Amino acid sequence: MAAIVTASLDVMGGDKGAAVVLPGAELALKRFPELKFRLFGDEAVVLPLLERMPALMQVSTFEHCEISVKMDDKPSQALRRGRWRSSMWRAIEAVKSGDAAFTVSAGNTGALMAMAKFCLRSPAGIDRPAIAGIWPTLKGESILLDCGASIGAEAQALFEFAVMGAAMARALLDKGRPTVGLLNIGVEEVKGLEQIRIAGQMLREAQLADLEYVGFIEADDIGKGKADVVVTEGFAGNIALKAAEGTAKQVSAYLRQAISESFLARVGFLLARNAFARLRRAMDTRRANGGVFLGLNGLVIKSHGGADAEGFAAAIEIGCSMARSGIVSEINRDLAAYRQMQLSDEVKTGAM
Amino acid sequence: MAAIVTASLDVMGGDKGAAVVLPGAELALKRFPELKFRLFGDEAVVLPLLERMPALMQVSTFEHCEISVKMDDKPSQALRRGRWRSSMWRAIEAVKSGDAAFTVSAGNTGALMAMAKFCLRSPAGIDRPAIAGIWPTLKGESILLDCGASIGAEAQALFEFAVMGAAMARALLDKGRPTVGLLNIGVEEVKGLEQIRIAGQMLREAQLADLEYVGFIEADDIGKGKADVVVTEGFAGNIALKAAEGTAKQVSAYLRQAISESFLARVGFLLARNAFARLRRAMDTRRANGGVFLGLNGLVIKSHGGADAEGFAAAIEIGCSMARSGIVSEINRDLAAYRQMQLSDEVKTGAM
Repeated sequence: MAAIVTASLDVMGGDKGAAVVLPGAELALKRFPELKFRLFGDEAVVLPLLERMPALMQVSTFEHCEISVKMDDKPSQALRRGRWRSSMWRAIEAVKSGDAAFTVSAGNTGALMAMAKFCLRSPAGIDRPAIAGIWPTLKGESILLDCGASIGAEAQALFEFAVMGAAMARALLDKGRPTVGLLNIGVEEVKGLEQIRIAGQMLREAQLADLEYVGFIEADDIGKGKADVVVTEGFAGNIALKAAEGTAKQVSAYLRQAISESFLARVGFLLARNAFARLRRAMDTRRANGGVFLGLNGLVIKSHGGADAEGFAAAIEIGCSMARSGIVSEINRDLAAYRQMQLSDEVKTGAM
Repeated sequence: MAAIVTASLDVMGGDKGAAVVLPGAELALKRFPELKFRLFGDEAVVLPLLERMPALMQVSTFEHCEISVKMDDKPSQALRRGRWRSSMWRAIEAVKSGDAAFTVSAGNTGALMAMAKFCLRSPAGIDRPAIAGIWPTLKGESILLDCGASIGAEAQALFEFAVMGAAMARALLDKGRPTVGLLNIGVEEVKGLEQIRIAGQMLREAQLADLEYVGFIEADDIGKGKADVVVTEGFAGNIALKAAEGTAKQVSAYLRQAISESFLARVGFLLARNAFARLRRAMDTRRANGGVFLGLNGLVIKSHGGADAEGFAAAIEIGCSMARSGIVSEINRDLAAYRQMQLSDEVKTGAM
C-alpha cells in the first residue's frame, strides 16, 4: 500500500457544503485507500452525516469550527470574520503545520486565495500565486494558468507561472519535459503585449531543463493540446476558461434539444448510447474539477462551488497526486536555480 | 424589389481567393437579388472564373489590380506595397467614394484594418475602430466587440464600443433596444479592471435611449445570450472568441469519434440524422462568419481567411443588412448626442 497522504477538508465550503464534501471524500477514499482526512466544519451539520459513513469516519479526525465562510463573503470580510476560526482557515492551517499534505475547499475563491496567501505565504522570490486549471484537450489534458488569481502580470510573473505550471504538468500529467506556450493573439502586427514578448524571450533564453518553451499559443489551439501548459495573466485566463466551459455547455444543450425533438432521434440516441457516454466522459468537466493554487508554501485545491460529490472527489485526487510528487519543493528548487543563473549573468555582464 | 445595394469585393483575399469569393458572391446574389458588385482583383485569375458565372457577371463591374495583399504581409508592408493599387485597397476606396455601400475581404485582418483606417478614417470623436463578431447563443445571436482590432482600451473607448455594438445589434439582430454588458471576471474582490468599472459607470449614468446597460457579464454567460452586445478590449475579446471556437470544434471532433467507433452508433446516428443536421446548423460558425469593422467612415466586413463560399456569402449578407440600416450615420449620431450631453454636464459642473 502506498504511503499515507492526509488531506484537510473545509467541509462547509461550496453551494451544498457537507452534503457534497463528505460523499466526495468517501468516493476518493474508495479509489485512494491511502488517504486520511482532517475535517473542519460545524459539528451540528457534519457529525450526523459523518456517522452514516463508517469507512470515512475511520480514517478521519474532525474539529468543530464556529465560523463558515459564506459563498458571497468578500475576501476582506472573510479574513476579518474567519481568520483563526473558520473551517476554511483551519483546513489551510493544517497544511501549514504539516498535519495535512494538501487542503481542498469548494468555498469562495477570493476568500480561499486571501486566506491561503495570508496563512501560507509565497516562497521568497515568487511574485504572486496563480490558479492553475485543467483543460481537457483532444490529446488528453493541458494546464492553463493563471485562471484568475490576479489581474495583469509582468514578464517575470509569467515566467514564474511557466515554471510552476510545468512542475504541475510533471506531477499530474506524467510529462517528463512538458511543453509550455504563452497565450497570445495573432491578429496584430506587433503580436500581443510587451510583457508577453519579454516573457517569451526569457523562457527561450533560460533553456530550462524541465520544460520546453514552444512559443505563442492562440486560444483556439488550447483544445488541440498544442502545449501541455498554457501561460497567461488571470483576466485573459479566466475569460478563456469560462468561454470554453460556456461553449461546452451550450453544445450539450443543443445536443439534448436535437435529440428530444423526434422519436427517431431518441431511438437513434438509444442505439448510440455507448458512444454518447464516451462523449459525455470526454466533455465531463467534473473530471477536470479543481483549480490548483500554485506559488504558496503549501498545496491548496479549489473545487468548484457547484461541484457534485464526483467533482469534489476529483479535486481530492488531484491534490493527492500532486502531494505525492512533492511539487511545492520542486517549484522552489526550479525557481531558485533560475534566480542563481540570472544572478551570475548579472555578475558576468556587470549589471549589478 | 428592394433598393439596389452595391458591395465591393477584394476578390484576391483569403486562403483560396477568387475560388471562394466569386462562388460566395453568386450564392449571396441568389438570396439577395438587389445586390450589385464591384470586383477588384487580378484579371488573369478572376476573368476565367467570372465568365462561367453569367448571373454574377451581369450585376458586376470588374477592375484589374496589379497587387494582391498576401495573407502573411505585415500591415505596414501591405500599406507600403498595396496602397492605391491592391485589390484590398481599391475595394475599400470604393466605399469611400460612395461607389459601394460596403466592402468584404477575406484577406489578412491586420492589413485590412490598417488600410481601412488609412483610407476611411474614424469619425471625429471615435477613439479607435473595433472588430465586432457574431456569437451564436442559446437565445439566438449576440455581438462581441472588440475581437482584436487593438489591445487594451480605456473606459471612453469601451463606452464607444458599447454604442457601436448596440447600433449593430439594432441593424442585424432586429433588437429595438439591445442589452449591453461589459465582459469581466468575477473571482476578484474588486471585480475586474478600473477602466471596466468606469465604463460601467459611464453607461449607467448616460442612460442612453438606444441601449440597455445590464452590467458585467462573465465569459460563460455569453453563450447563454445574457446580453445582446458584449463589450471588451481586443485582447480578451479575441481570446474569448477563439476559446469558444476551439471548444466547439473540439466537441465536434469528440462527437465524430464517438459515432465512428461502433456499428450501433452509426445506425443510431443515421436514425437521428435530422437532429444532428439541426445541431450542426446551430454550431455552424459559417453563418456567423464576418467580423464587422465599426468606428470608421464606411462599412468594412472581414470574412475568415479560411471561409468557404457559404461563409463568404454570409459575410456579404451581413454587410447588406447593415448597409440598409444606415448604421454608420446612426453610430455617429448616437456618439454626437452623448458628447453633447457630456459637454453640457461639464459646463454645468464648471469642469471646463
